[in-house]
Amino acid sequence: MESSSDELEYVKSRVGSYPNFPKQGILFWDIFSVLADPEASKKLHGLLIRHVRAKTPGVQAFVALESRGFLFGSVLALEFGVPFVPIRKKGKLPGAVYQETYQLEYGTDILEVQKDSITSGQKVVIVDDLIATGGTLEAGCRLVRRCGATVEQCLVIMELTALRGRAQVSADVHSLIQY
Amino acid sequence: MESSSDELEYVKSRVGSYPNFPKQGILFWDIFSVLADPEASKKLHGLLIRHVRAKTPGVQAFVALESRGFLFGSVLALEFGVPFVPIRKKGKLPGAVYQETYQLEYGTDILEVQKDSITSGQKVVIVDDLIATGGTLEAGCRLVRRCGATVEQCLVIMELTALRGRAQVSADVHSLIQY
Repeated sequence: MESSSDELEYVKSRVGSYPNFPKQGILFWDIFSVLADPEASKKLHGLLIRHVRAKTPGVQAFVALESRGFLFGSVLALEFGVPFVPIRKKGKLPGAVYQETYQLEYGTDILEVQKDSITSGQKVVIVDDLIATGGTLEAGCRLVRRCGATVEQCLVIMELTALRGRAQVSADVHSLIQY
Repeated sequence: MESSSDELEYVKSRVGSYPNFPKQGILFWDIFSVLADPEASKKLHGLLIRHVRAKTPGVQAFVALESRGFLFGSVLALEFGVPFVPIRKKGKLPGAVYQETYQLEYGTDILEVQKDSITSGQKVVIVDDLIATGGTLEAGCRLVRRCGATVEQCLVIMELTALRGRAQVSADVHSLIQY
């Protein structure tokens, strides 16, 4: 059987990189090229599943950030047999919602969660593809707590370590790949 | 073992409905409330998987429309061991892309696919949560064909039949639930 580190190396080899996207000076890491390779996708999801099983086995819901977090959150929720909960940009979720504002490079934006989507006391894992500045993940943590639930961990695939995003997040952050 | 129609009834019972969202006069059907119920989510994904296995067993890629199509496309691609390919709103995908314009209630919008994400000659299934007017699904079909691939089927969970969206789509459309 292949080791986890061999699997991770294979996944990493499939991450796309695009200089100057979405703007000049930014190096964009593309997780979609991993999902375009069935073998890489299988290994990536295996790594995520084994991580959750080892570190947060009591997880009671996966909270996924729109829209790339949806890719992994839906697989994990199905695998663990627990609810999938979306966090979306303002105005996209029906019914009563909580809102949290977060900082963008210029200005702010708003994320929302449906009030009844997480039960008070639940232990949740927040899922996204990437942590950069940590602003959206931290807004996610605040939304989860507004519902009365606990963030066991923020689980991301890629971390841009130079941006020190995890210092902005008031919960444990785990990344599979660091750049 | 439960029958498929019993499973479908259970899934249907978990779809949320919100009058006057996102605007006055619109009844919004919320698929997220299905994913919030692990039993309903398991049944829904089982129905989708069995449908693909029966109707398009030779599928070579799942093409998912942002962002709710991502939820189901990622699970299906993993299950069938084939590539997952995203179609996103303009400006979100790096690298060379094809673009297609589609009609909104007021004005137009643009969808994109990465040019190298689908191989010429591939048989693909396009996945989304809902067909309303059919505009986005048809733009998806055109993008797939721009890559030289074939749309075997458009697979959606919910169909608003009164809008006759499937008449706008130049490929076979299958829906699990009709309203």
